[in-house]
Amino acid sequence: MTPRILTKSDTIVLAGSGVAVVLAGITRYTSVPAVVAFLAAGVAVALLASVVGRSVEQLGDRFGPGATGVLQSALGNLPELFIGFFALKAGLVAVVQAAIIGSILSNILLVLGLSFVVGGLKHGVQRFDSDRARTSTVLMVLATGALVLPSLASYVHAPAAAHEGTLSLIVSVVLLGVFILSLPSALKRSPEPILDRSKIITTRPAGRPAPGATRPASKAARSSAKASVKASATGSDGGSAGPTDTTPAAAGAQSGVHAEAPRWPLWLALTLLAAASLAAALVSDWFVVALEPAIDALGISQAFAGLVIVAIAGNAIENVVGIQLAYRNQADFAMSVIIQSPLQVALVLAPALVLLSLFTATTLTLVFAPMLVVAVAVTVIAVAFVVFDGESTWLEGATLIALYAIIATAFWWGG
Amino acid sequence: MTPRILTKSDTIVLAGSGVAVVLAGITRYTSVPAVVAFLAAGVAVALLASVVGRSVEQLGDRFGPGATGVLQSALGNLPELFIGFFALKAGLVAVVQAAIIGSILSNILLVLGLSFVVGGLKHGVQRFDSDRARTSTVLMVLATGALVLPSLASYVHAPAAAHEGTLSLIVSVVLLGVFILSLPSALKRSPEPILDRSKIITTRPAGRPAPGATRPASKAARSSAKASVKASATGSDGGSAGPTDTTPAAAGAQSGVHAEAPRWPLWLALTLLAAASLAAALVSDWFVVALEPAIDALGISQAFAGLVIVAIAGNAIENVVGIQLAYRNQADFAMSVIIQSPLQVALVLAPALVLLSLFTATTLTLVFAPMLVVAVAVTVIAVAFVVFDGESTWLEGATLIALYAIIATAFWWGG
Amino acid sequence: MTPRILTKSDTIVLAGSGVAVVLAGITRYTSVPAVVAFLAAGVAVALLASVVGRSVEQLGDRFGPGATGVLQSALGNLPELFIGFFALKAGLVAVVQAAIIGSILSNILLVLGLSFVVGGLKHGVQRFDSDRARTSTVLMVLATGALVLPSLASYVHAPAAAHEGTLSLIVSVVLLGVFILSLPSALKRSPEPILDRSKIITTRPAGRPAPGATRPASKAARSSAKASVKASATGSDGGSAGPTDTTPAAAGAQSGVHAEAPRWPLWLALTLLAAASLAAALVSDWFVVALEPAIDALGISQAFAGLVIVAIAGNAIENVVGIQLAYRNQADFAMSVIIQSPLQVALVLAPALVLLSLFTATTLTLVFAPMLVVAVAVTVIAVAFVVFDGESTWLEGATLIALYAIIATAFWWGG
Repeated sequence: MTPRILTKSDTIVLAGSGVAVVLAGITRYTSVPAVVAFLAAGVAVALLASVVGRSVEQLGDRFGPGATGVLQSALGNLPELFIGFFALKAGLVAVVQAAIIGSILSNILLVLGLSFVVGGLKHGVQRFDSDRARTSTVLMVLATGALVLPSLASYVHAPAAAHEGTLSLIVSVVLLGVFILSLPSALKRSPEPILDRSKIITTRPAGRPAPGATRPASKAARSSAKASVKASATGSDGGSAGPTDTTPAAAGAQSGVHAEAPRWPLWLALTLLAAASLAAALVSDWFVVALEPAIDALGISQAFAGLVIVAIAGNAIENVVGIQLAYRNQADFAMSVIIQSPLQVALVLAPALVLLSLFTATTLTLVFAPMLVVAVAVTVIAVAFVVFDGESTWLEGATLIALYAIIATAFWWGG
Repeated sequence: MTPRILTKSDTIVLAGSGVAVVLAGITRYTSVPAVVAFLAAGVAVALLASVVGRSVEQLGDRFGPGATGVLQSALGNLPELFIGFFALKAGLVAVVQAAIIGSILSNILLVLGLSFVVGGLKHGVQRFDSDRARTSTVLMVLATGALVLPSLASYVHAPAAAHEGTLSLIVSVVLLGVFILSLPSALKRSPEPILDRSKIITTRPAGRPAPGATRPASKAARSSAKASVKASATGSDGGSAGPTDTTPAAAGAQSGVHAEAPRWPLWLALTLLAAASLAAALVSDWFVVALEPAIDALGISQAFAGLVIVAIAGNAIENVVGIQLAYRNQADFAMSVIIQSPLQVALVLAPALVLLSLFTATTLTLVFAPMLVVAVAVTVIAVAFVVFDGESTWLEGATLIALYAIIATAFWWGG
Repeated sequence: MTPRILTKSDTIVLAGSGVAVVLAGITRYTSVPAVVAFLAAGVAVALLASVVGRSVEQLGDRFGPGATGVLQSALGNLPELFIGFFALKAGLVAVVQAAIIGSILSNILLVLGLSFVVGGLKHGVQRFDSDRARTSTVLMVLATGALVLPSLASYVHAPAAAHEGTLSLIVSVVLLGVFILSLPSALKRSPEPILDRSKIITTRPAGRPAPGATRPASKAARSSAKASVKASATGSDGGSAGPTDTTPAAAGAQSGVHAEAPRWPLWLALTLLAAASLAAALVSDWFVVALEPAIDALGISQAFAGLVIVAIAGNAIENVVGIQLAYRNQADFAMSVIIQSPLQVALVLAPALVLLSLFTATTLTLVFAPMLVVAVAVTVIAVAFVVFDGESTWLEGATLIALYAIIATAFWWGG
C-alpha cells in the first residue's frame, strides 16, 4: 500500500463536507422549504462527524492505540453532543430523549443488522467469538439497566419518582464515573499485541488454502493472539487487560482497519479536527433550527424525528465501518466496533447531556417516554443474545432490521 | 431395519385418528355433556395433527430435506390455524390470543422441561451445543420481541396505541416477510451433510467404547459434519447455510430421526395429507363449537382454556418427538426440534391469524392481555438462557415444568 | 498445613461473636441510642451467621460433601430466616420483602462486583467457564421468574391478582418442591471427584511454569475432573450429576476451599452450631426490635433498611469467601459460591417466609413493591449475561457495584 496523505475516501468525505456545509449555510439563511434546509444540515452534520472521526484516528495513531481509543470515545460523540445541546436549548426535550435511545437502537438493530446481511450474503454463516464483543455487550446491558432505572422508578410511582431530577443526576455521575475508571487502563494499553493480532488476521487468507474453513483459522489466530497477550501482559502490568481490553474507552483503536501508520501530518490532523469540530458545532445549530419546521412540514412526531432521523444523522457514517468489516469477513471486529457505540451513548452521551442541561433553560432527566424504554429494553435483551450466540446469518440480520422497522413504525404516529 | 410401509406407531396414530374423528362426530351431533364432546374433538384434533405431520414428513423425504422443512413449516401449524380461525369466527378472541401465547409456553416450558427430565434421568447431564438451537433461540427472542411490541405500546398509552390494528397488521406482515425470506435458502439446502451427520450419530455408540464420554464424541461428530458441510457449501453456493442452517423453514427435516428413505408411497402420503387436513378442518370446527359450553361447564377461564387446553391439543403429539430424542440422548436434535415450534408460532401462526381475522367478523390484534405478555416475556428470556447454557439436567427440566405450572395457575382464575 | 482445631480466623470470628452478642444484649436492655443498639445487634447477627456457616462446614465434612451441601442450604439462611420471622411478627412486611430482594441484589451486584474488582486488579481478566455457575444462573433466572409472577399478575390487574395470597402460597410450595427435588442427588453425590478436582487445582500453580496461561491449565483440570466424574458416575448411578452437580442443595461443598479434613471434633461442631443458632435467634429478635427506632432515627425508608442494611447483615460475612476465592484466582469457584446464594433465597428463604407468615399476624405475599421487582428483574437479566460471558474484568465489577449503588439510591427516599 502506497502511503498517500489523503485516500480517495478521505478526499470524498472532506470535499463532501465542505460542499454540504456551504449548502447548509445557504439554506439556513435563505428562504427555502424547511425540509430542504433540514436535509442539507443533516447531511453536513453526518459528513462532519465522519471528518472528526478520521482526524481523531490519524491523531491517535501517532500516540498509540490507547490514546486513539480515549480520544475517539471523548470526541466521537461530539456531533451528537452538539445537536443534543442545541436541541435542549431549543426546548426539544422529547427529541433529545428519543435521539439518545435512537442512537442505541440504530446501532444495534440497523447497523448490526446490515452488517449481518452484507456479511452473511457474501460469506455465509459468520462467527464472532470475540471476548471483547461479549464484554462490551455485558457493559452495555449493565449501563442500559442503570440508564432506564429513573424511568422505571417514575412509571411505578416509587418514592424516588418525586426526586427524578436528582436521581437522573446521580445516575449520570455514576455512569460517567464508570467511563472515567476505564480511561487509565485504556491509555496504558501497549500496542504490539494488536498489531500482532491484525497481522495474523491479514495473513490468514494467504496462509489458509481452504477459505471455507474460517472457524479453525480464527480460533488459531485468537489463541495465538491470546498467547502473545498473556506474555506481554505478564511482562508489563498484571492489572491491565491487553488486547482483550474491553474498556469502553478503547473503541475503534482495535478495529484492525487502521493499524497502519498515520497518513496525515500532525498539523493536518489537528487542523481538520478543530475545523470539523467548529463546523459541526455551527451546523448542529442550523440542524436544530431547521428541525422543528421540518417536523411540522413532514407531519412526523418529535419522537420519530429524534429516534430515527437525528439518531442516524448523528452517527450514521461513522458506523459504515462496521458494515465494511463484515463485508471483509472480519465479523469479530465488526461486532466490536458496532457494540462499542451504544455503550458510549449510555456511558458518555446521555450522562453528559443530562449534566449539560443544567446550563440550559430546559432540564433533561433520564425519565424517558415509556415507549422508548420499552423499545430499548426489548432490543438490548434480544441483541445481547444475538452477540452471545457467536455467529450470524443474513436472516438474523434481516430480522434485526425488521425489528428496527417495527419500532420505528410504532413511533411514527404523533401524540 | 425392515422398511415397512406403516410402522406400528403409524398404525396406532392412523387408527386412533379414525376412531377419534368418528367419536367426535357422534358427540358433536348427539346430546352428550359438553365436556365429553370437547374432549373427543380435542383428542381427534391432536391425532390428526400427528397424521398431518407424518404425511408431510413422508412427502418431504421424497423431495429432499429442504422441501420437507418448508412443507412442515407451512403445514405443521395447520390444525392450530384451523382452530384459531374457527375460534375467531366464533368471536373467541381471548381464547385465540391465549392459545398463541400458550403454544409458545407449552413448547419451551412443558415439552422442553419434559425432555430435560426424561433425558436427564436416563443419561445424566446432557449437552446440546447446537448452533442451530442457539440461532433459532435468537430468532425466537427477536420475533417474540416484535410480537409483543403492539401490546407494550398499548399498555404504556403510546400514541401508536390508537392505531393498534394497523400496527398489528404491519408487525404481522413484517414477521411473515422474515419467514418468506427464510424459504429460498431452506429449499436450496443440499441433503448429503444431514445424512452424513445422522450416520455419524447413529454409529457413535458402536464406535465409542466408553459410553460416558459423550462430549468428545459429539464434538468430533459435529466438527466432522461441519467439515463436510463446509466442503459442500463452498462447492455449491456460498450464501446457503448448510446443515447448520437455522432458517425457521427448516424445521424437523434435520431432526435426524427421519433421515431414512420414505416409507409411504407418494399416493398414500398425498391422500393421507389431504384427508387429514380436511378432517382437521372439520374437527377443528367441532372443537371450537364444544369449547364454549365446555368452558362454562368446567368453570375455567377463557384464558386458561386457550393457554393450556387449546395450545396442548393443537401441537401436543407432534412434540413428543422432542422428548423421544432426549430419551435417545440426542439432546442437540431434541432442542432444535422443540425450539423450532415457538419460532413458527411467532413468525407464521400469529401473523397468519391476524391477517385471516380480516375475513372474520372479529378482528384479531396483537394487543394481548397484559398477563399473557408478562408470561411470555419471563419465559422467553429465561428459556433463552437455558438454551445458551448448552447443558441440561433433570432438575432444570423440573424447574421449567414448575414455572409452567405456576403460569397455568396464574391463569386459572377467571375475569 | 498443620491441622489446628481453630484457625486464626475461627478464633477471631468466635471471639468476635461472643463480644458482639454481649454488647448487643447490653444495648438491648439499657437506654442507648436506637442506632447504637441496632448496629450492635447487626454486627452480632452477621458474626453469628458466620459461626453457623463454619459449624455446618465442619459438621458436613464428616458426612461427605453431599451432606454438607444439604446442611448448608438448609441452615445457611437461618439467620436471615430468624430476622425475617421476627420482622414479620413485628408487622414489618415492607422490610422483609425488601430484604428478600436485597439479599439477591447484594450477592449478585455487590459481592460479585467486589470479587471481580479484587480478582481483576490482582490477576487481570479472569475466566470462569464453570458449567455449575451457568446452570445455577439458569435456575436463578427461572426461580426469580416464578418469584415475581404474583407481583406482575397484581400490577397488570390480572384476574389472579384477586387471589394473590393463594397464588403466593402455590408459588412458594412449588419453589420449595424444586428445592426438595434437588436434595436426593445432592446427598448421593460421591466425594472423590471433588477432592480430585481440588487437588488438581491446588497443584496447578506448582505444576505450571507459566502462571499467566491460566486458561489451558484450568481447561485441563476441568476435563480431567470431568473424565473421572464420568467414570465414577457411570459406575455408581447414571442419573446423578457428579461434581458438575448443579443442584441448589450442593452449595459451598464444592467450593474447594474446605476440601481438607474436618478440623473441629464432632462435639465442638454440634455445640457451636446449636449455640450459634440459638444466639442468632435471640439476637435476630433484638435486631428487629432495634430496627424500627433506628429507621426513624436515621430517617431512612423501610425499603432501604430492608434492601441494604438487613440484607447485608443477614449474609454479608459468609459471602466474603467468594471475594477471597477471586483474590486467589479461583474465579470458577468464586462465581459458583456467589451465584448459589441468590438461588437459595429464591428457592428456600422467600418461600419459607411466606409459609412461616401463616403463623404470624402479618401475612407475607410475594406481591412486592413494584420498584423491588424492577430492580431484581434488571439485575438478574444483566447478571445472567455477566455469568454467561465467562470472563470478568475489574471494570465489569466496578459497573456491577455502580448499578448496586444506583439501585440503593433509588430506594433511599421514603414513601
